[in-house]
Amino acid sequence: MFGIQLISGTSNKPLSEEISSLVNVPLTSVIIKNFADGEKYVRVESTVRGENIFIIQSVSPPVNDSLMELLILIDSVKRGGASQINVIAPYLGYSRQDRKSKSREPISAKLIANMITSAGANRLLVYDLHADQIQGFYDIPVDHFLGFSIFAKYLLDKKLKNIVVVSPDVGGVKRANRLADHMGAPIAIIDKIRSKHNQSDVAHLVGDVKGKTAVIIDDIIDTGGSICNAVNEVKNKGAKKVIICASHAVLSGSAITNLQQSVAKKIVFLNTIKLPSTLSNKFVSLTVAPVISDAILRIHQNKSLEPLFVN
Amino acid sequence: MFGIQLISGTSNKPLSEEISSLVNVPLTSVIIKNFADGEKYVRVESTVRGENIFIIQSVSPPVNDSLMELLILIDSVKRGGASQINVIAPYLGYSRQDRKSKSREPISAKLIANMITSAGANRLLVYDLHADQIQGFYDIPVDHFLGFSIFAKYLLDKKLKNIVVVSPDVGGVKRANRLADHMGAPIAIIDKIRSKHNQSDVAHLVGDVKGKTAVIIDDIIDTGGSICNAVNEVKNKGAKKVIICASHAVLSGSAITNLQQSVAKKIVFLNTIKLPSTLSNKFVSLTVAPVISDAILRIHQNKSLEPLFVN
Amino acid sequence: MFGIQLISGTSNKPLSEEISSLVNVPLTSVIIKNFADGEKYVRVESTVRGENIFIIQSVSPPVNDSLMELLILIDSVKRGGASQINVIAPYLGYSRQDRKSKSREPISAKLIANMITSAGANRLLVYDLHADQIQGFYDIPVDHFLGFSIFAKYLLDKKLKNIVVVSPDVGGVKRANRLADHMGAPIAIIDKIRSKHNQSDVAHLVGDVKGKTAVIIDDIIDTGGSICNAVNEVKNKGAKKVIICASHAVLSGSAITNLQQSVAKKIVFLNTIKLPSTLSNKFVSLTVAPVISDAILRIHQNKSLEPLFVN
Amino acid sequence: MFGIQLISGTSNKPLSEEISSLVNVPLTSVIIKNFADGEKYVRVESTVRGENIFIIQSVSPPVNDSLMELLILIDSVKRGGASQINVIAPYLGYSRQDRKSKSREPISAKLIANMITSAGANRLLVYDLHADQIQGFYDIPVDHFLGFSIFAKYLLDKKLKNIVVVSPDVGGVKRANRLADHMGAPIAIIDKIRSKHNQSDVAHLVGDVKGKTAVIIDDIIDTGGSICNAVNEVKNKGAKKVIICASHAVLSGSAITNLQQSVAKKIVFLNTIKLPSTLSNKFVSLTVAPVISDAILRIHQNKSLEPLFVN
Amino acid sequence: MFGIQLISGTSNKPLSEEISSLVNVPLTSVIIKNFADGEKYVRVESTVRGENIFIIQSVSPPVNDSLMELLILIDSVKRGGASQINVIAPYLGYSRQDRKSKSREPISAKLIANMITSAGANRLLVYDLHADQIQGFYDIPVDHFLGFSIFAKYLLDKKLKNIVVVSPDVGGVKRANRLADHMGAPIAIIDKIRSKHNQSDVAHLVGDVKGKTAVIIDDIIDTGGSICNAVNEVKNKGAKKVIICASHAVLSGSAITNLQQSVAKKIVFLNTIKLPSTLSNKFVSLTVAPVISDAILRIHQNKSLEPLFVN
Amino acid sequence: MFGIQLISGTSNKPLSEEISSLVNVPLTSVIIKNFADGEKYVRVESTVRGENIFIIQSVSPPVNDSLMELLILIDSVKRGGASQINVIAPYLGYSRQDRKSKSREPISAKLIANMITSAGANRLLVYDLHADQIQGFYDIPVDHFLGFSIFAKYLLDKKLKNIVVVSPDVGGVKRANRLADHMGAPIAIIDKIRSKHNQSDVAHLVGDVKGKTAVIIDDIIDTGGSICNAVNEVKNKGAKKVIICASHAVLSGSAITNLQQSVAKKIVFLNTIKLPSTLSNKFVSLTVAPVISDAILRIHQNKSLEPLFVN
Repeated sequence: MFGIQLISGTSNKPLSEEISSLVNVPLTSVIIKNFADGEKYVRVESTVRGENIFIIQSVSPPVNDSLMELLILIDSVKRGGASQINVIAPYLGYSRQDRKSKSREPISAKLIANMITSAGANRLLVYDLHADQIQGFYDIPVDHFLGFSIFAKYLLDKKLKNIVVVSPDVGGVKRANRLADHMGAPIAIIDKIRSKHNQSDVAHLVGDVKGKTAVIIDDIIDTGGSICNAVNEVKNKGAKKVIICASHAVLSGSAITNLQQSVAKKIVFLNTIKLPSTLSNKFVSLTVAPVISDAILRIHQNKSLEPLFVN
Repeated sequence: MFGIQLISGTSNKPLSEEISSLVNVPLTSVIIKNFADGEKYVRVESTVRGENIFIIQSVSPPVNDSLMELLILIDSVKRGGASQINVIAPYLGYSRQDRKSKSREPISAKLIANMITSAGANRLLVYDLHADQIQGFYDIPVDHFLGFSIFAKYLLDKKLKNIVVVSPDVGGVKRANRLADHMGAPIAIIDKIRSKHNQSDVAHLVGDVKGKTAVIIDDIIDTGGSICNAVNEVKNKGAKKVIICASHAVLSGSAITNLQQSVAKKIVFLNTIKLPSTLSNKFVSLTVAPVISDAILRIHQNKSLEPLFVN
Repeated sequence: MFGIQLISGTSNKPLSEEISSLVNVPLTSVIIKNFADGEKYVRVESTVRGENIFIIQSVSPPVNDSLMELLILIDSVKRGGASQINVIAPYLGYSRQDRKSKSREPISAKLIANMITSAGANRLLVYDLHADQIQGFYDIPVDHFLGFSIFAKYLLDKKLKNIVVVSPDVGGVKRANRLADHMGAPIAIIDKIRSKHNQSDVAHLVGDVKGKTAVIIDDIIDTGGSICNAVNEVKNKGAKKVIICASHAVLSGSAITNLQQSVAKKIVFLNTIKLPSTLSNKFVSLTVAPVISDAILRIHQNKSLEPLFVN
Repeated sequence: MFGIQLISGTSNKPLSEEISSLVNVPLTSVIIKNFADGEKYVRVESTVRGENIFIIQSVSPPVNDSLMELLILIDSVKRGGASQINVIAPYLGYSRQDRKSKSREPISAKLIANMITSAGANRLLVYDLHADQIQGFYDIPVDHFLGFSIFAKYLLDKKLKNIVVVSPDVGGVKRANRLADHMGAPIAIIDKIRSKHNQSDVAHLVGDVKGKTAVIIDDIIDTGGSICNAVNEVKNKGAKKVIICASHAVLSGSAITNLQQSVAKKIVFLNTIKLPSTLSNKFVSLTVAPVISDAILRIHQNKSLEPLFVN
Repeated sequence: MFGIQLISGTSNKPLSEEISSLVNVPLTSVIIKNFADGEKYVRVESTVRGENIFIIQSVSPPVNDSLMELLILIDSVKRGGASQINVIAPYLGYSRQDRKSKSREPISAKLIANMITSAGANRLLVYDLHADQIQGFYDIPVDHFLGFSIFAKYLLDKKLKNIVVVSPDVGGVKRANRLADHMGAPIAIIDKIRSKHNQSDVAHLVGDVKGKTAVIIDDIIDTGGSICNAVNEVKNKGAKKVIICASHAVLSGSAITNLQQSVAKKIVFLNTIKLPSTLSNKFVSLTVAPVISDAILRIHQNKSLEPLFVN
Repeated sequence: MFGIQLISGTSNKPLSEEISSLVNVPLTSVIIKNFADGEKYVRVESTVRGENIFIIQSVSPPVNDSLMELLILIDSVKRGGASQINVIAPYLGYSRQDRKSKSREPISAKLIANMITSAGANRLLVYDLHADQIQGFYDIPVDHFLGFSIFAKYLLDKKLKNIVVVSPDVGGVKRANRLADHMGAPIAIIDKIRSKHNQSDVAHLVGDVKGKTAVIIDDIIDTGGSICNAVNEVKNKGAKKVIICASHAVLSGSAITNLQQSVAKKIVFLNTIKLPSTLSNKFVSLTVAPVISDAILRIHQNKSLEPLFVN
């Protein structure tokens, strides 16, 4: 296919390869390395002049390195004369720092937006932002895909009955509502008070889970503390079975152990972040590659992305 | 006081006068008029050169006229040599259009952010944005005040017991949570499906309101349809008493009549938007002037605003 | 025709339809509505990705609403991935506020220029700006069409003899000169002193109108006060017949009545602003649609607009 | 005086010295030289950190060298940490190229505006722009002084009677009107057709000059061709005496000879451009230094410039 | 060839014509003139709408005029609707002012970079910048061609033996190293102390030149003082023969005489600057036209420039 | 001292503390932490409103984390209302990527410049940039300090005789020349060919080192490979003693071991990067704190930095 190029960063190479295979365009050969002092170096090995470039790079841990790699890739294709630079960051780190909750805090998600834009990106494609409003941090078009329909398809295939969708905190109710709406299920909420960063206190459950299959949905599982508390709370309130659906498997610290040991039956992730290869079969990975591949082709062919959002 | 000036637009003159009185700085004399064809014209009548200017103007209905008036005021003091231009927009219209929910929608709240910034504002002070993330639409400092503590003080003064804080939709749960947290009360949520713009279908209540005083909290009351449905739903589910707390009294169409006729005991507003003078005593107006006045003085004296946020 | 789209705002739908018909491209389906609180909402109903978009919207009264509608339309197609955004604003309001005449006045026409540009427009097409220099407020290309040749054609068709072209004020002499030059006629000027905004005092006539057909030319008729005074002055000085040619029919207040009752034989407008449907046959409307349609096609086909300016 | 510095370019050193003397601030020592290849080099010899800098440099012939010198001066004080950079360009070249009159012409005056702004200027002070609207080419404050009151004072001191103010072309009628208004005199206009750049054909005179003292006013005298034709035309139509008032003495080619040989009694210039030292006493130079000096002090002391404009 | 246009400024017309002939695209007809007062005026005589424009203009003496001409050309094609504006400035003046060496100096090369970019250029093509880092002054792509391979080809054709490549100062060692590397020759350096701008004191030679053919390489020959001192120093240290290779023939003051009278056998220039027609056969001019022509075609056809850099 | 604040990042706390002590201003209390997923979080604990902020943070390994920490610190004080944000980055990573040496490489140093500027920095203070021209990557003032005078003082204190200053590559000759100039010593150069990134082949020595004390000067010691080869080459050519002076102790991989085992007598660093605490006494650290402290005070008191550069 003439005029389109896929360039993969190093943060999620398997996803890039899956997309490349679906789009039927080989990944452009790129040198990406770390100098001895940790500085990133990149060089695209064939011409990008006048081409429609799609750079695939999740801003996932090591997050600052992934970000810098993305920015340097953008700079190199910009200076190389690319026609359009589309950034595909299925997971976009720093999105949780999207507002000031105290005086003299940064809004790091805006900082990242300004970096990506001023480096030269013409378009951004992301999955399940922490808040929808982050689209508005950008003046370039942002295509924001929601993973709930992928989770819904998984749940429907499992023919689960009597479902309640649970948000593990008040910030995620809208996300729970979307899935519930789609499934025709009610919602419940864990109304917790978050005492300090990254640590969470479950307060109590609002809504009814007794005897039901509780699907706890969240955008990010980081240390897993908050989600495991949610599992316990839901179980204590009489849920029959618990399934976790989370878009981005950040999985810091002892997250994997915690999740493995929890009473949740299944932990279902999207593959926006490269998953460890050694997870037990309690963990399920659902791919976003078909949607992203379709989006790439539609963008390249000047077709609307609307059909990809509607369902 | 040397070096500070308060300039009031026409959208909420009473609030400006209240602030002027508290700050003990007279409003700078300004000519603001509409030409015969509806174009806004402004002229500041005394020098602003080198001064620290605070422009007070809610972007409230007629929203496009209020916005244009604000922008032209900014332009005139910028070209007049003002040192700092602080915009105080207690209500900032278009904030609900803060994300694309469908293809080819605008993000009007970002458009407004770009307008205010490029006109020359150096700082923005707002009350109860529709979403906290709108702060991140700006690269200038945004001081975002939350009205819940004013509502809490009102409710505590009334010595209400057995309260439940109700969010009229899933998007407002965080707001409900803040007030509930502050009051030590539980929350409940109306999990509705919003079928079309400005019309709403109540779905069902999540949480328990039976025998309680339900405080329904929202940021904006526009046509009032959604909030009145919430009142009914809560009442149907056995709430003893219903009180509405809403920050911004947009009050379009037959909103006043609907609210007056509803079973809510009290409808409590902030005065971020100029309230009609003829409301019955079922309506209560709480003033934001003390907080804003304190903020203006602190900004002018280079003191932290933190004490105003903490409480 | 592939790749071109015409999007019409609501300010002058008949002109858009005339253009659409001449260009032979249907108007793209767009939802434009006012929310209950007066906020504008737009949504383009079919894909604009990669397309060459022409947005047709005069910034005419209600001028702030028309402007906001234009900006939101630009934002929505920008975020929707349009390739080029051409704004066609046959009448561009606020153009009279194009300089500071007193301290601490705004230059609102520049503010509008910055808004249109930063919203995402790539090109602007306008008719009869209040001053030619407003082109220079923009860093994007501005195609500035002059209506005098349309007026000239009308006057020549009427086979009027012994014409003098009259400028109703000193600011419009260049405009009068252009028409006079084109007709081979002399000019005269009303040298008035403008006492206050929107009100005018005729001072005296410079030049000779005795026994001649006086064609008074102006860019905008707003309240009509100034032009009616000019008619009287010209008539008092012995003009045989008076014809008014004005590009933009703003027609505020009692303008229509004043013009109808004046001794002018004909009042000739361009249709840059939607004219009231109930005007007497003393009023004549000349269409700009053929020129604009030709310009649209030439822009889309990368042909020069020069032939459209020369004549 | 602490905190203020005057930096003079080389284009009009005498004016800078006059201003320096009136402001009572010595000119800051600056090295300005041309390298052998014609590149400009500047270095400010004492610290500018945190200072309020006024750079005095007319953009007069050799115009490109003067402009570059101005820009490099701005850059050097910007990088040197100046607090505010005020550019005083009594004559601002390229102002006549302020609009496109044909396809594929530049708008050079906007280009200059962008250069001055992006180099780092915070404010611009100019005299008698070719068009008032050029103020709107800038987003920084522009103080635009008009020389007509200086001319008026000169004419009143001469106790001239029975004056008519003549504009040498249709573009300058507003300028003539301002002076006439101020003097209580009528106006007349030379309605010429400008055939080619810099050459002009007088067409005919509109208005009455017979037996009067004709004051021809223009902003710029370049080659002097057009103004000398105007003198002849006015004289032919019976003017008793002719006086020329022109703000900017560009005086290209044989302008001085032409003016000297014309029947004009006096040619009165402002000293915005350095005048040749050898002019006959037919030429009169009026100084703008007092107004500029007053403006500098008022800007530095944060006082309004309004009193300087009103008179 | 459709869609490509070559526009030549006046600074190096012979090179433009050579390029035009090689690219097989005629130079677009352009009016470029100086007004009587020295202001530049340009007008492109045929349409540029949607075209891929290459403007060829060295920023060579008279450097400020050449620069302004370039910027005005860019502005005119930008406002005329050009699709891409490629600036080809084989010699880019002001490049030596690329850093602050003393307090309160400008960085004029950055100023020029900002001017070219903000005027509207999309790409810059240059030869032998004074420092490679100047590429980084731009956020648009800069194609930086190095002339050493042209010199090497010349030297190899001459079958010179026992070569040493000499840098006339410490700043040019990298340049000498490139040529030496390419030729398999050693290097030597004149370690001088530059006392004042444009004047130079030879200190002493580092390295060995005895009995060798010394090829002194520099980027610019301005007054020629420094290079002639280098010739003498090299000769004094026993070099058998001296050849000068310099990219840009600025040739200020008595440079030509100095070079003619020096003991250098040949002075070899690139034709990035238009050479005087009367030089003796001691001077050799090598053309950059083939490389630039190839680059233009590759850019227009979206091919990589890499093959042009590698050799 | 009122109005000044020093904020230290985590990359070189000892230097910050030394500066704090010399400036006599305590370090402002700041929370800086890494979230579990590696995202940086910062919060300044006391008000910065209206203050003159100096952020001290070397962009040293882990370079991407250090950079992100710096940017987030800038963002937080910008949004907190700081008056001036001065960034002190004694070592500024990525400076070696300051030009494209091959097609489709990035210019990462410019990317970093744009990031720092657009985050909100008003001024940058750095030590020994890889190339002086990097100053020109910025439009904000950059104070570029050179360490050679600190090295010179050290060498003079040691009363070393018969010195030759050696540049380990052709890119560093200017640096060697500065030190040599200052010491009245000759220079020599290692004319190597750098085969691949971070690996180097010594070619041969240009100049004379026999029997001399060779001071090899470089800006950065990364893996140390190139400098150790230089030591060997110099020793092989008969140098009596070898001393290494290098500004920035990046010290990747086995650099410390290599240097320890080399025949160099002393390895002298500046403390722009935090040095390992366990180095042998073969390593010497010279502090930049006095110069930086003096610069901070001078900037804060609006005094010239010139005296700090001259020496």
